[in-house]
Amino acid sequence: MKDAKLILKTHPTHQTVVQVGDRVAIGGSDIVVIGGPCAVESLAQMEQVAQVLAITAVAALRGGVYKPRTSPYSFQGMGVDGLRVLAAVRQQYGLPVVTEVMSVAQLEPVCAYADMLQIGSRNMQNFELLKALGQVPQPILLKRGLAATLEEFVMAAEYILAHGNPNVVLCERGIRSFDPYTRNVLDLGAVVALKQLTHLPVIVDPSHAAGKRELVPDLARAAIACGADGLIIECHPVPAESVSDARQALSLEDMVALTESLRAIAIAVGRSLPMPQAPAPLVLV
Amino acid sequence: MKDAKLILKTHPTHQTVVQVGDRVAIGGSDIVVIGGPCAVESLAQMEQVAQVLAITAVAALRGGVYKPRTSPYSFQGMGVDGLRVLAAVRQQYGLPVVTEVMSVAQLEPVCAYADMLQIGSRNMQNFELLKALGQVPQPILLKRGLAATLEEFVMAAEYILAHGNPNVVLCERGIRSFDPYTRNVLDLGAVVALKQLTHLPVIVDPSHAAGKRELVPDLARAAIACGADGLIIECHPVPAESVSDARQALSLEDMVALTESLRAIAIAVGRSLPMPQAPAPLVLV
Amino acid sequence: MKDAKLILKTHPTHQTVVQVGDRVAIGGSDIVVIGGPCAVESLAQMEQVAQVLAITAVAALRGGVYKPRTSPYSFQGMGVDGLRVLAAVRQQYGLPVVTEVMSVAQLEPVCAYADMLQIGSRNMQNFELLKALGQVPQPILLKRGLAATLEEFVMAAEYILAHGNPNVVLCERGIRSFDPYTRNVLDLGAVVALKQLTHLPVIVDPSHAAGKRELVPDLARAAIACGADGLIIECHPVPAESVSDARQALSLEDMVALTESLRAIAIAVGRSLPMPQAPAPLVLV
Amino acid sequence: MKDAKLILKTHPTHQTVVQVGDRVAIGGSDIVVIGGPCAVESLAQMEQVAQVLAITAVAALRGGVYKPRTSPYSFQGMGVDGLRVLAAVRQQYGLPVVTEVMSVAQLEPVCAYADMLQIGSRNMQNFELLKALGQVPQPILLKRGLAATLEEFVMAAEYILAHGNPNVVLCERGIRSFDPYTRNVLDLGAVVALKQLTHLPVIVDPSHAAGKRELVPDLARAAIACGADGLIIECHPVPAESVSDARQALSLEDMVALTESLRAIAIAVGRSLPMPQAPAPLVLV
Repeated sequence: MKDAKLILKTHPTHQTVVQVGDRVAIGGSDIVVIGGPCAVESLAQMEQVAQVLAITAVAALRGGVYKPRTSPYSFQGMGVDGLRVLAAVRQQYGLPVVTEVMSVAQLEPVCAYADMLQIGSRNMQNFELLKALGQVPQPILLKRGLAATLEEFVMAAEYILAHGNPNVVLCERGIRSFDPYTRNVLDLGAVVALKQLTHLPVIVDPSHAAGKRELVPDLARAAIACGADGLIIECHPVPAESVSDARQALSLEDMVALTESLRAIAIAVGRSLPMPQAPAPLVLV
Repeated sequence: MKDAKLILKTHPTHQTVVQVGDRVAIGGSDIVVIGGPCAVESLAQMEQVAQVLAITAVAALRGGVYKPRTSPYSFQGMGVDGLRVLAAVRQQYGLPVVTEVMSVAQLEPVCAYADMLQIGSRNMQNFELLKALGQVPQPILLKRGLAATLEEFVMAAEYILAHGNPNVVLCERGIRSFDPYTRNVLDLGAVVALKQLTHLPVIVDPSHAAGKRELVPDLARAAIACGADGLIIECHPVPAESVSDARQALSLEDMVALTESLRAIAIAVGRSLPMPQAPAPLVLV
Repeated sequence: MKDAKLILKTHPTHQTVVQVGDRVAIGGSDIVVIGGPCAVESLAQMEQVAQVLAITAVAALRGGVYKPRTSPYSFQGMGVDGLRVLAAVRQQYGLPVVTEVMSVAQLEPVCAYADMLQIGSRNMQNFELLKALGQVPQPILLKRGLAATLEEFVMAAEYILAHGNPNVVLCERGIRSFDPYTRNVLDLGAVVALKQLTHLPVIVDPSHAAGKRELVPDLARAAIACGADGLIIECHPVPAESVSDARQALSLEDMVALTESLRAIAIAVGRSLPMPQAPAPLVLV
Repeated sequence: MKDAKLILKTHPTHQTVVQVGDRVAIGGSDIVVIGGPCAVESLAQMEQVAQVLAITAVAALRGGVYKPRTSPYSFQGMGVDGLRVLAAVRQQYGLPVVTEVMSVAQLEPVCAYADMLQIGSRNMQNFELLKALGQVPQPILLKRGLAATLEEFVMAAEYILAHGNPNVVLCERGIRSFDPYTRNVLDLGAVVALKQLTHLPVIVDPSHAAGKRELVPDLARAAIACGADGLIIECHPVPAESVSDARQALSLEDMVALTESLRAIAIAVGRSLPMPQAPAPLVLV
């Protein structure tokens, strides 16, 4: 990490806390769980998700509207219509929303609606995008590239900080390897190392790492046990009908059960999980 | 796993418990921690280790006397003299001992002294050795190869079972990957998958995975959180003076602290850690 | 490659020939060698390079003006000034120029000057950029991502074709692996497979694969022997003084010798290498 | 390679030539092609192979009688009966034979029949076997492990030399990687590096690397173009009926055509291919 300046931990308790919306803080004592579908598919779908998650310990909602897809013929996301869906459920259920941005041109619409901007693995070294992220007010969720070294990963964060935005959360989401049994290999050693090297919060995405829903809960618990500040997990009202990554999405019931199971682990490592929330009051605008 | 027969879990609670010596059982509710140095270096060294670990929750002692070394000019292990050291400390401190065997020719001396035989990563597909292990009375600790798929790993265990020995414990110890920051990548997704696929106990070696002692405790806790049945961890009275793998060995104090920290995690996932033992009575022979 | 439509070879002799400038065609019987420095550093540097290469079998000039760098504090390229340097040497020496583009915003200036646009490994799945490349008149040199499967690679090309630009050349440049001895692993099996799967031309970058200049010539010859349509190789007037990737750049003398050594290999596999060119007449504008 | 002593090239023309039987030398100007099936299946099968190959430029015959198989339920090889088959065809057709040995116990029968002993990838770091190989009179064909670094590979050879046998040929056979399209990734950069680092001959196995027969000929030509001293290639009278690795075996016709195509490449890099042999006179014993 010889060129790193801004992301380095300068003393053992040096820790950035990144604020997402009004209520959520990543990097503090609370474990932050972000849940939601791979892709925003409709208002009805997102309402089903938000209705369930809003009264649990899940702190924020995820859902992609601009989707990086291997094939140009696959569903590319709902775009601005999807952003409006996210804004609607945020207002109704009081959960901040996280969504992916794939290009500088998408920054304007996404910044108008989202509480946190996700940069996907395939764009971790899209340096022109990283530079532009330095200028936005929202915090950034930066996912590790599929074959990025830790040095490349933290230096990508360094780009964002160096261009003006100090609010970056790192996300380990599995690296590419040789075994077809799992989609990727979740590298929790990287999480431990990142927590020691940098003051930025570090969360884990066990869904993309595993690629199989039955592996997700145990990996989620492991992530919290090794010091991660939070999780981002895919869930869907009807996983089998998910338009993308159906094999890895949890049902909403399993998502709730998993989240609650984290509490004991969090306590075991000196952290906490927020208590399930009372339903948010409806806000009329 | 199309060819697997004997290692497959046939129903959700199908679980083999492997007995090591009289007192230790791997695969039951107790988390089993195996600790000790990379290599047996002297009786004094092993006594220092055993004296400390015998009154903790550590259940068994490790120490290599036949060492697989990349270079023919590196220390190759104490051989039979080392086995005698292991036998002496076992008798004095009441801890069963685990040690590596690298060839069919070493089986006779090792079986005369050790409670459990470890097969290292480099021999995971040494098929002639696997066949011979089917005929020994001791349980086998089979480490995953550096680039072994899960199918190859469980089929290596299948060899041992098919040749007559049902007592095999699988050990995930990190796979080879691209990032020089850690020595290997600990693949806890494999642990979760193996616990679902097979009835054999699964333990984790975070020391060889990380290659850096400061990463070991968090990875050890993650391993227990995701369902591992135990851990094998390297520690040394003076880590910096270890003849091999010095960079990853814990001090004995750190080993004891780490072991005790596992209790809360074990409980959080419905397991237990044995209570620290009273000093074993000296047995005169 | 289940989703691929436009990039698939429909019959054994189906082969696209991509025109670069007036004189150069990639995918025909001639092997096309592209040479030049990692980064454009000055007019003097590029003139030194072009002067030597223009009278060899080297067909085109490379040089980066927008540089994707791991660290935000490393030299980021000369930008538009560098494009003017490329245009000047192209006019003077008659060699078409290839240069990297990292974002949609860079398309306008680069398209005003360059004969071919290179997309680097880190942007292979920058899908918004790929879509925009469908609309430019220049041919595209698409480099394989560091950990891209062949399916992901050809589907990235499919994006460009599906959005309107049929002139794509694929470039294998090494994939990430575990051995620190070489920078990456040159995957010539991928070259053979791509030549069988797709009608697009395929070239090889042995410089970034090897990361060490002493490995480059032998790998370049191997690439031609296995059916590659060309090569892109880094060279520099004074390799040790290169501002980036100094360790892998050939001297100009070695570059000329390597290029000439390809002739016998090309003939051995039924291809040809252009004869060294007479110095291009100066064109007054 | 800090610990290497015996395998290092001490001056640029330092090159060991390994004699296999009376007629074949690996590491000289002649390219040595070894051909034959994955497994010896019957005398009839081996006679079909030998009859065709004996009158080509193929220099030696391969065929496994002890087979390392992932599953204990797969065909494990003909054993000593297979060795007798190899001896019979050797005598009849005058081709030296290469076969794999998996354990110290197999050394005695194999040394009684074979001209060269192959150590497979899974046993590259079977150190007790390597030590024993130092004491046999036959030359050793040492295959690179599936995830072995170059340092580990040459140090495995160093074990054999250090224990008394100077006749070791290194064989690159593909390394494990992430793309399921090919079985492994052929690492020709390793071949180039090994030729520069060590005085031992280096050959290439494109069959196991590619795993698909249609990729083998181009990779074989690439291997010779980058400086390999020879090839070991799988072929079978009826590839689809091969008991193992059927997908990668060439037909005998394709094997002959491939071998002949190497001549022009060999000449292009200053090497030679033996002229097809006249049928060997029958030797009556």
